[in-house]
Amino acid sequence: MKHIAESTVRRLSLYLRYLEEFEARGLATISSTELAARGRTTSAQVRKDLSFFGSFGKRGLGYSVPELEKRLRRILGLEREWRVVIIGMGKIGAALAYYSGFRQRGFRIVGLYDDDPAKIGRKVDSFTIRAAADLARDAAKQPADIAVITVPAGAAQQATDAAVRAGVRGIMNFAPVQLSVPAPVALRNVNMAMELEGLAFALTNPG
Amino acid sequence: MKHIAESTVRRLSLYLRYLEEFEARGLATISSTELAARGRTTSAQVRKDLSFFGSFGKRGLGYSVPELEKRLRRILGLEREWRVVIIGMGKIGAALAYYSGFRQRGFRIVGLYDDDPAKIGRKVDSFTIRAAADLARDAAKQPADIAVITVPAGAAQQATDAAVRAGVRGIMNFAPVQLSVPAPVALRNVNMAMELEGLAFALTNPG
Repeated sequence: MKHIAESTVRRLSLYLRYLEEFEARGLATISSTELAARGRTTSAQVRKDLSFFGSFGKRGLGYSVPELEKRLRRILGLEREWRVVIIGMGKIGAALAYYSGFRQRGFRIVGLYDDDPAKIGRKVDSFTIRAAADLARDAAKQPADIAVITVPAGAAQQATDAAVRAGVRGIMNFAPVQLSVPAPVALRNVNMAMELEGLAFALTNPG
Repeated sequence: MKHIAESTVRRLSLYLRYLEEFEARGLATISSTELAARGRTTSAQVRKDLSFFGSFGKRGLGYSVPELEKRLRRILGLEREWRVVIIGMGKIGAALAYYSGFRQRGFRIVGLYDDDPAKIGRKVDSFTIRAAADLARDAAKQPADIAVITVPAGAAQQATDAAVRAGVRGIMNFAPVQLSVPAPVALRNVNMAMELEGLAFALTNPG
């Protein structure tokens, strides 16, 4: 398959959400124009995004809402459950542990880790925080797919290396630092300050 | 100015971070090739991104690190302080209130709000949580530039409308819902589940 840009994948996630809305409103079919209008993009963009993944819809009839939903779920890898660990039980990590939006999308948290002896053994939601050193042992029993890294910047690479050694194949990094991961481990970064910088840019350069 | 894509602005934020690293290492000039290598992109991409904003650097000499930093800060709107309020003092909102990365970039939190009587009056960091209804009154004294929305999805549009009425010009939305804002208010969304979906896609469609 061709390389698919992150921005395309993000739009696919949005299309799936719009389709769920359309389905909740009882709509059985949808045109690329309607889907584009919902996402404030163009129907050409919608058709191009979907064309990466084969042919969808019938000319003049639009897309079947449940069928397109199902195919988007398959494309995005949401037809299965993903096992997620969170490493770093500071405020952001603990907040993510309680976040219900993950489970709704098939991301099941299976373990919480921290290196701080004051935190190890404490309960967060239904979990007991475990030592980061236990990650490999826990993974040997039940491997995790994805590690969310919420440790301070200086500890993030070490936490990532430990997660990769424990068999994790995807890293979601909240630490404000560039991590390196071996192929084929996938890495995505969420940088809260950078998101605000995007807003600062928009406010500084209106229109 | 031409419309600048969000992905371009995100790369500018990254270039600024790389330049700060280069400066910390004592480098005075940098080529587009070196900047590109640091960001795992191409020098053509770096030159294109910067060309939106006029001419930079001297052919054969590369960019002056402090000068390019200064110009990126100006372009991104980071030469001033931005006043930020957070609406919604659940776990994510409270975690963001403590996040030191904002202040380091000139985003100063000036108020925390919630509608829950059990939370109003409680302290978070050095702030006392105030009623969402107080936002307009507080803003009349000292306006805020940006509101971070961390209320549940069902309350997000109402919180956004209140922030816009109070004079806020930028909305950073963490609620998993599509908000509508009047022009010229700027809106950005952070959707934690969508970030994980990007990873699920990468793990499902390797290479």
